[in-house]
Amino acid sequence: MSKDKQQVSKEITPQSEDFSRWYLDTIKKADLMSYSPVRGCIVFKPDSYEIWENIQRELDRRFKETGHRNAYFPLFIPESFFQKEKEHVEGFNPELPFVTEAGGEKLEERLAIRPTSETMIGHMYSEWINSYRDLPLLINQWANVVRWEKRTMPFLRTSEFLWQEGHTAHEDEADARRETMQMLEVYRDFAENFLAIPVIVGQKTPSEKFAGAVDTFSIEAMMKDGRAVQAGTSHYLGTNFAVAFDIKYLDRENKHTYAYTTSWGVSTRLIGALIMVHGDDKGLAMPPKVAPTQVVMIPIGPAKTRDMVVARTDELFAELKSAGIRVKVDDRIDQSPGWKFNEYEMRGVPIRVELGPRDMDNGVVVLVSRISGEKRIVQQENLVAEIQTMLEEIHNDMFERAKSFRDENFISVDSLEEFTAFLEEKRGFALAGWCGSDACESHVKEVTGATSRNIPFEPAEKKDKCLVCGETAKDTVVFGRAY
Amino acid sequence: MSKDKQQVSKEITPQSEDFSRWYLDTIKKADLMSYSPVRGCIVFKPDSYEIWENIQRELDRRFKETGHRNAYFPLFIPESFFQKEKEHVEGFNPELPFVTEAGGEKLEERLAIRPTSETMIGHMYSEWINSYRDLPLLINQWANVVRWEKRTMPFLRTSEFLWQEGHTAHEDEADARRETMQMLEVYRDFAENFLAIPVIVGQKTPSEKFAGAVDTFSIEAMMKDGRAVQAGTSHYLGTNFAVAFDIKYLDRENKHTYAYTTSWGVSTRLIGALIMVHGDDKGLAMPPKVAPTQVVMIPIGPAKTRDMVVARTDELFAELKSAGIRVKVDDRIDQSPGWKFNEYEMRGVPIRVELGPRDMDNGVVVLVSRISGEKRIVQQENLVAEIQTMLEEIHNDMFERAKSFRDENFISVDSLEEFTAFLEEKRGFALAGWCGSDACESHVKEVTGATSRNIPFEPAEKKDKCLVCGETAKDTVVFGRAY
Repeated sequence: MSKDKQQVSKEITPQSEDFSRWYLDTIKKADLMSYSPVRGCIVFKPDSYEIWENIQRELDRRFKETGHRNAYFPLFIPESFFQKEKEHVEGFNPELPFVTEAGGEKLEERLAIRPTSETMIGHMYSEWINSYRDLPLLINQWANVVRWEKRTMPFLRTSEFLWQEGHTAHEDEADARRETMQMLEVYRDFAENFLAIPVIVGQKTPSEKFAGAVDTFSIEAMMKDGRAVQAGTSHYLGTNFAVAFDIKYLDRENKHTYAYTTSWGVSTRLIGALIMVHGDDKGLAMPPKVAPTQVVMIPIGPAKTRDMVVARTDELFAELKSAGIRVKVDDRIDQSPGWKFNEYEMRGVPIRVELGPRDMDNGVVVLVSRISGEKRIVQQENLVAEIQTMLEEIHNDMFERAKSFRDENFISVDSLEEFTAFLEEKRGFALAGWCGSDACESHVKEVTGATSRNIPFEPAEKKDKCLVCGETAKDTVVFGRAY
Repeated sequence: MSKDKQQVSKEITPQSEDFSRWYLDTIKKADLMSYSPVRGCIVFKPDSYEIWENIQRELDRRFKETGHRNAYFPLFIPESFFQKEKEHVEGFNPELPFVTEAGGEKLEERLAIRPTSETMIGHMYSEWINSYRDLPLLINQWANVVRWEKRTMPFLRTSEFLWQEGHTAHEDEADARRETMQMLEVYRDFAENFLAIPVIVGQKTPSEKFAGAVDTFSIEAMMKDGRAVQAGTSHYLGTNFAVAFDIKYLDRENKHTYAYTTSWGVSTRLIGALIMVHGDDKGLAMPPKVAPTQVVMIPIGPAKTRDMVVARTDELFAELKSAGIRVKVDDRIDQSPGWKFNEYEMRGVPIRVELGPRDMDNGVVVLVSRISGEKRIVQQENLVAEIQTMLEEIHNDMFERAKSFRDENFISVDSLEEFTAFLEEKRGFALAGWCGSDACESHVKEVTGATSRNIPFEPAEKKDKCLVCGETAKDTVVFGRAY
């Protein structure tokens, strides 16, 4: 077993040695993706796609509970649509791929592949919305989108990715702002209570907001190398897209009025965030609620008791399965238990169940936590309840570990020098005052490589001076280097 | 109420007057889709997308039960990939849109938007498959695909559509053929027992098979205008794509051997088929298992008993909902019961539940079938069971009606003249002998507009002479005009 362990370990670079290398080693060894022959596009192999399916199922349920319905809009967007919202076109034009020929003929107007669908959906909404009775219009789309990125990173930044984009239209600002905040809260709750990823909830600075939004809000997570991932965004679009696409309705006073719109999304980059927040030198560590396999059962012991042990394992497997637990048995004989222990640790399965002949005699099984390594000997007759409890505990454990890590790598600074000194020693976030000027914000970036992540709603403290110019702080901002 | 009925009816052209008009009227009135500004691309509005979600959920379950897992492959396919399989490129090249510019630069190699993914997946499989231990490889993808169609029809033929494509690789021909047949049977069972669409199962003639397949099998359905829709296909690809993409593995004798592959798919055209098989002059008629709303409850009676009736309706609603029935209540006061009856008939909801003050006194409710119009007075205390029974009966009823219709419009012919005479009077399918020559097959098409749908596995009878040349029949074929 120790020999196996060494073999496994040496294939994954330790995080402390080279975090990027660790990430690429891990996703390769865990068989999550393949590079495709198309620049920046990856293949989501079954083990990562299943994570996405679990994310989809849970978010979809939450969207429907909050009154949204799914629809599907075209992949192609006429180039002229992007010209209609000035900031939007500036933000997205550099990343658009264009279809210029189809069916053997040159197209009259180039068609962009959607990078996001505000324009197409805005166009359709102007057709669909006529009266206040049509509002609010609450629609979500699950789709692929493309942004021709210069630098890519599997899951975190790929040219094509999968996401959901909510697009809603409302009678007035208050209702649209309420929706924007509601969906931000759906994302926070989902990240923390489903993915076990603690997030900082706040508003983007003007320079970091979505191209075409009035206000952008985000949840921001810290990876184990101290870098940030924007894990979800919710945009209050005001009447920007309504004016650009003429989304007008007859209001309760019989007047033609512009609708107020929102949009919000999360993407397959959440898979990357899951890996970087929870993984360790053994490989993946999957939070129980999103884990494709929550429990792996491994029968052990000598050949003579094998049939008996496997038979009992299968019985317990059936019990767990019918209780809705995602479980599998590995009873292969051509791999040693030790090899299997390492394999499923590397794949991040939250609980390993071991059952040997002595456990059979005692009516027990051994549960091992992927996260803490804790071994727990439990009665077979209580197995379902014990597993459910332990899964819950592992979720909480993972959340707390991620939160502690973030708190340890999150400094409050009064000056840029302090921030720079911090980054020389550690990697992480800084909480700092900011005067509100673009110049100070971009100066931080030039010096440290860190961007403003967001203006948190609940900062640990209020900072009163700008870290760059020393003037009175307008806001307290989280800065960090981001993926 | 009769006034309302007339108003509704006059907006949908009767099927007998103009079937295409009926179809377009119905999908517009039922709010299923919008035309988009991009040629041939439609928007799937929530009421049609929900049908697709129900199709997806059920098929996905069946695919997983048969050992398949989902993955996701890139949208873009390098043009050179299409050149590798000669028949494939000839079949698909005329329909490909190409991305030629991205991120402000001209691409070195043009990228096709996938019309189907055999080539991309073949390329990846050649990387993934090394040993017989890697086989069978059983993967499915849910995705959008694009085929730049000259003539389009909402749902049935759109430039972009949604589908699933299964792609599997096997050690030998026998295993690949077994998979091909298994998935064809999954489709047949799904069409008949979930969508209530009777289908003809058989093999495509060589001229109608998938570009690059050795053999193509299909399920074919008859619409209410007598035309055919190919509702699903399963392809045995032999080693065609394995040779083109070098999918080789080390077999059990340690020799490098080509894998045998299959592919199979169904698409959002099933939504069109559902509408055209089951709909009638009132509008949509949704088979219970796929219907987004299975039951609509409408409280009736005068204002003074209204609160009491609505309260009881809500209680019964909660019971149905917790039994897993997709139910909704329409208790709006600004629309009359008669208007609502017509509205939900037009939307195809299988069962309407009416509850009025007299029903309250008697402890009953009235159930009305969308299909037969049958009214059934049932005890409120048995409502869940009564609804479940009636949904099952409606499913069977719809299947039998569709089957009778097909049988009535399905003639056995000995000559092309007989077929032509039949088509002058009616519209439908013909069963006929065929010598096996492309010439006779295309002659049928020239004269009648009908193509060979497939060579059914279980024809009603075996025909012994070719309908065109009169020579000995090689096969008994179903001919029909197709969408």
